[in-house]
Amino acid sequence: MRSDRLGESLLPKRYALPIFASDPLSSVAYATQEILIVLTLAGTAFLYLAPWLAAAVVVLLVTVVLSYRQVVRAYPSGGGDYEVAMKNHGPAAGLVVGSALLVDYVLTVAVSVSAGTDNIISAFPSLNDDRVLIAVVLVAVLAAANLRGLRESGRAFALPTYLFVSGILVMLVTGFIRYFFTPGGLVAESSGYSITPEPGYSDLAGLALVLLALRAFASGCTALTGVEAIANGVPAFRPPKGRNAATTLALMGGIAATMFAGVTALALLADVKYTEFTCDLVGFAGDCETDPQRTVIAQLAAAVFGGDGSLGFYVIQTATALILILAANTAFNGFPLLGSVLAQDRFMPRQLHTRGDKLAYSNGILLLAGFAVLLIVAFDASVSRLIQLYIIGVFTSFTIGQWGMVRHWNRELGLTGDGQDRRRMRRSQAINFVGGTLTSVVLVIIVVTKFTHGAWLVLVSMPVLIVLMKAISKHYSHVAQQLVPDTDSRTLPSKVHAVVLVSKVHKPTLRALAFARATRPDQLTALTVNVDDEDTRALQADWERYDIPCALTVVESPYREITRPVLDYVTAIRRESPRELVVVFVPQYVVGHWWENVLHNQSALRLRARLQFQPGVMITTVPWQLESSVGRDDGDAQGLGPAPGDLRRGLTDDEVESTPMAEGPADRRRRPDRARAPGRPRPTGGWGGPAPSSR
Amino acid sequence: MRSDRLGESLLPKRYALPIFASDPLSSVAYATQEILIVLTLAGTAFLYLAPWLAAAVVVLLVTVVLSYRQVVRAYPSGGGDYEVAMKNHGPAAGLVVGSALLVDYVLTVAVSVSAGTDNIISAFPSLNDDRVLIAVVLVAVLAAANLRGLRESGRAFALPTYLFVSGILVMLVTGFIRYFFTPGGLVAESSGYSITPEPGYSDLAGLALVLLALRAFASGCTALTGVEAIANGVPAFRPPKGRNAATTLALMGGIAATMFAGVTALALLADVKYTEFTCDLVGFAGDCETDPQRTVIAQLAAAVFGGDGSLGFYVIQTATALILILAANTAFNGFPLLGSVLAQDRFMPRQLHTRGDKLAYSNGILLLAGFAVLLIVAFDASVSRLIQLYIIGVFTSFTIGQWGMVRHWNRELGLTGDGQDRRRMRRSQAINFVGGTLTSVVLVIIVVTKFTHGAWLVLVSMPVLIVLMKAISKHYSHVAQQLVPDTDSRTLPSKVHAVVLVSKVHKPTLRALAFARATRPDQLTALTVNVDDEDTRALQADWERYDIPCALTVVESPYREITRPVLDYVTAIRRESPRELVVVFVPQYVVGHWWENVLHNQSALRLRARLQFQPGVMITTVPWQLESSVGRDDGDAQGLGPAPGDLRRGLTDDEVESTPMAEGPADRRRRPDRARAPGRPRPTGGWGGPAPSSR
Repeated sequence: MRSDRLGESLLPKRYALPIFASDPLSSVAYATQEILIVLTLAGTAFLYLAPWLAAAVVVLLVTVVLSYRQVVRAYPSGGGDYEVAMKNHGPAAGLVVGSALLVDYVLTVAVSVSAGTDNIISAFPSLNDDRVLIAVVLVAVLAAANLRGLRESGRAFALPTYLFVSGILVMLVTGFIRYFFTPGGLVAESSGYSITPEPGYSDLAGLALVLLALRAFASGCTALTGVEAIANGVPAFRPPKGRNAATTLALMGGIAATMFAGVTALALLADVKYTEFTCDLVGFAGDCETDPQRTVIAQLAAAVFGGDGSLGFYVIQTATALILILAANTAFNGFPLLGSVLAQDRFMPRQLHTRGDKLAYSNGILLLAGFAVLLIVAFDASVSRLIQLYIIGVFTSFTIGQWGMVRHWNRELGLTGDGQDRRRMRRSQAINFVGGTLTSVVLVIIVVTKFTHGAWLVLVSMPVLIVLMKAISKHYSHVAQQLVPDTDSRTLPSKVHAVVLVSKVHKPTLRALAFARATRPDQLTALTVNVDDEDTRALQADWERYDIPCALTVVESPYREITRPVLDYVTAIRRESPRELVVVFVPQYVVGHWWENVLHNQSALRLRARLQFQPGVMITTVPWQLESSVGRDDGDAQGLGPAPGDLRRGLTDDEVESTPMAEGPADRRRRPDRARAPGRPRPTGGWGGPAPSSR
Repeated sequence: MRSDRLGESLLPKRYALPIFASDPLSSVAYATQEILIVLTLAGTAFLYLAPWLAAAVVVLLVTVVLSYRQVVRAYPSGGGDYEVAMKNHGPAAGLVVGSALLVDYVLTVAVSVSAGTDNIISAFPSLNDDRVLIAVVLVAVLAAANLRGLRESGRAFALPTYLFVSGILVMLVTGFIRYFFTPGGLVAESSGYSITPEPGYSDLAGLALVLLALRAFASGCTALTGVEAIANGVPAFRPPKGRNAATTLALMGGIAATMFAGVTALALLADVKYTEFTCDLVGFAGDCETDPQRTVIAQLAAAVFGGDGSLGFYVIQTATALILILAANTAFNGFPLLGSVLAQDRFMPRQLHTRGDKLAYSNGILLLAGFAVLLIVAFDASVSRLIQLYIIGVFTSFTIGQWGMVRHWNRELGLTGDGQDRRRMRRSQAINFVGGTLTSVVLVIIVVTKFTHGAWLVLVSMPVLIVLMKAISKHYSHVAQQLVPDTDSRTLPSKVHAVVLVSKVHKPTLRALAFARATRPDQLTALTVNVDDEDTRALQADWERYDIPCALTVVESPYREITRPVLDYVTAIRRESPRELVVVFVPQYVVGHWWENVLHNQSALRLRARLQFQPGVMITTVPWQLESSVGRDDGDAQGLGPAPGDLRRGLTDDEVESTPMAEGPADRRRRPDRARAPGRPRPTGGWGGPAPSSR
């Protein structure tokens, strides 16, 4: 029955779409406006280019979507471009993609939140002075929510996404109707303005003009950001995962293309003006130094639904702001996934790979939020300035991924002779080839046109990340070399010498002694450190009184210090007989409140820290649970709460909540047949008999 | 030979004096001026009272010194007033003294540093604006020095102290000569000023006058602060400790009395004016709003040695500033001592008792410095305002201590019949009785006259401290009750089930397995958590390849989490056979650099944290030393560096530096005959044979 539950809990397309599409769809909210911003640098002269540039972007979008349909089918494990690059170009390329994606996650947060802020401000212009503050607060809220274990859920995403999509579509339809069939037509608030070209941009021609057009096109390419999301989320789809993911991709692509094209068209028809520098707008209502321009979306909504007061306007603005914030949130969920994939390849701390380590995730979230805030503050939460950094990473991974797919098909073609398949593969390869070529060209364009506008920052930080990841994997492999087994490491120690640390004769000590004796060591020493003569004498008296079946050894501590004498004692044993194994039993209190630790255990901890540098010494802590500790193991809650990215992994709510003691076989991908529910050892062979004595 | 070294390293009187007397002697630097400050509230009218008040203070000082000579003889263990109160009045009184002393240490730092700052400013008036800053920086420097393990040494103290004493004495002699034998006489820079009484203080009479006099007297009593220091440092003296300490006390008392009397006399002769509010000084040279008055010491030095430029002036100022800072430093050394005494009685975290825990000391130092800075900032580093808080604590412990001694002698008298002794004891008791009476009276005076001037702060914080200490000891005794041994805690577990955690087949794992087998458990399970199928399959393959003589058990982890499945597995075993002892072997990397821990061990740590809540489970960490860890155990340095207060404990440089492997018997007090150098187990009985099997 669990497997059923599991089946259910995997994502049907209607939920998968909003979850993975919120990021790419949301970019519709700013893509058009980014094209205008660049073109209007030269006044209104070259606005006629806008449609063509938009068309180019749409073509590109469609190509990339088609290419990714190949990726999701070929690599359903959710590794996305990174996996493709790794498998087909090797680690170097993989690292480039990895670093590109890391940078992108930061920028997704920064850009989406800033754009969201813009649209909030468009609805409530008075907030303009607090732009940066609002953006930072939004990031903080997202980070906090994800730290607390905010659970992604299809439903939560569905509403705003579908609201946004339908809202925009309704707006477009109404808009076109008004434009063509109503006398007044459709007039944006900024249609009356004229634009003074920036110095040096007036009457451009030749190369300069081409460059301007390319820059505008590059900016428009932000419409493609987030397309790769689905490729990283295939595991969350219902089987047949590959096909469902591909369908969803197509759906998403179609919607995105329509909306982008529509918004751009409508903006041009309504004669929307949007410039980088507000003061270039001649006739701008309000003080161009302080007052903001309203986003293209806001201007259209106002024009279509009749003024700011209108319900439609507020609906659109709300939906837009919401989906942009959702888009930012996807980064918080995507990052841990990437982290765990990178960790699996030892490019990142390995605890990122396991679910258990909330700490690692928390740090990831904090880093993500931290850098996003840094960028937001550094760039005054200006979308158009942040965009310059954004697209580089995106297209880097696009390009490498696509070329990787081309190789992939070559290899595949090498293996299969079947004509049917080969034709299919050739077609796929062709698609990826086109995709690869286009994205490469765009990447070049971006680097050339955006470098001086901030892209350099990304081109600097990516290598830094790569070096870091290389260093980490180097460390791991270096360690791995040290750890290759040799005969020496398998030889059994000749004898076992148990040393039980005694401070007082009380339950913990007695338990430690009992446990130590239960392990039947060759030698058993009860060791105490004489810190205070009276105490020690009292201890010795008790020792007699309880006549404990093992002599008490007292070592002196002139400096009222515990660690050192024990250490010396142990090293002395080791020196006398190096092949002897020393097991140090440390009774330790387990307390319930953090402050109790201030009153206990310090020495035990310090001792362990020091002893571990001694080869051939084992430290055994014998925990004694104080009353206050009962029922204090809140580890469960921590251990099993939802973690960011679970949904995208296909670990959805029900499953995350179900206890691991639950029965039955489960999702094949993660639980092959030999799977057992944890806690229930496999019957056969799991229980080794007593190991042969070493003598 | 070590014992000789030890003998040497105990303090000869010539070094003991500066170390313990810097605090009491330094108070000469401000006592006189505190009397003047109060008297001059009523203008110059009642300055004639000054000599009488000073005389009263001297009498008090002598009495207290005499009383303490009894204490050091009767309680040579260095517990001081706290011990006296504990032994003769019981815990309640002990706690009062304890809290009083804690408060005093904070105020010693605040007052001494502020006074030091005053004298620095008297030499360099331009620094006046940064008064508070300077004081805070001085505290910070002292704290830092003590955190780094600044070592008190007799020599370091000797120079400034003797310089100060001799400097002041020379100044006095020269001063008197000039006054009596030179035509011009001795004229302080402030002699010309007249003083306008504060509103409400003009022409006082009757009770009001008495109150003023009493207030002035109470302020003058600061001359006694620090007298108790020697009583807490007896262990550091050479035997016969008691007698030597007593002699040093007498010496200190004599010097202090002389200096205080002399300075006061000379100040009055030179007609020094010093007021609380500078603007009450009519004819004050400079802006009374901003410019500081110079300390009485500074004014005298200038008058005696001829102006600011003179060498003598600078010598005096330097010596005064130095000894005041030394006095502050004594608090940093005295505090840990008090802490360890309180810890021994379980009123404070017990790790304060042992030398090992640097952390505990560091926290103590930081707390001390923190509160001192708080006070300095709150009271603008004004000595005369801080004084109000200071003396209460001092006289509280004086009083309780003296009355405790009276009881002590009663008890002693009860025991001995010998006439000779009885007479001696009677005399001692009489002295303590007088001391007790006087100090009680003064305490009342202080509380009455100072309460509204800030003393209330102390009278509030002492109870808080008492409650805190009570709570701590309550916690300890509560725990102690839980731990009283019963038969149950001694029963041996029926069987031992060893569980070795396996992640990979590498040296650490093999070592862990070898060690686990060496302990010959009844059952041995090699347990791995299936986080990633590929990894697990690889592991199983290796397992076969190295044909490891123990089957590998795989538990599933649907959520790619390690802790939980292991936990469930262990609890399952416990559930099946509760009397079985489970030993979990955790291979653990030992790394050399902190950042390496970011890349390793996380799961091991978390696992231990969770497992310890399971009764009947032992966690055995099998450390594997990575190359980077070799020679990285800097614990030694930490473990044996000098700690604050060592000198006062009689643990001086040589001894602190000597390694514990050194030979021979040592100071009887801390090392009775049965003492051995650590690391060398006593030959007899220390080695228990193999414990009897539990079946």
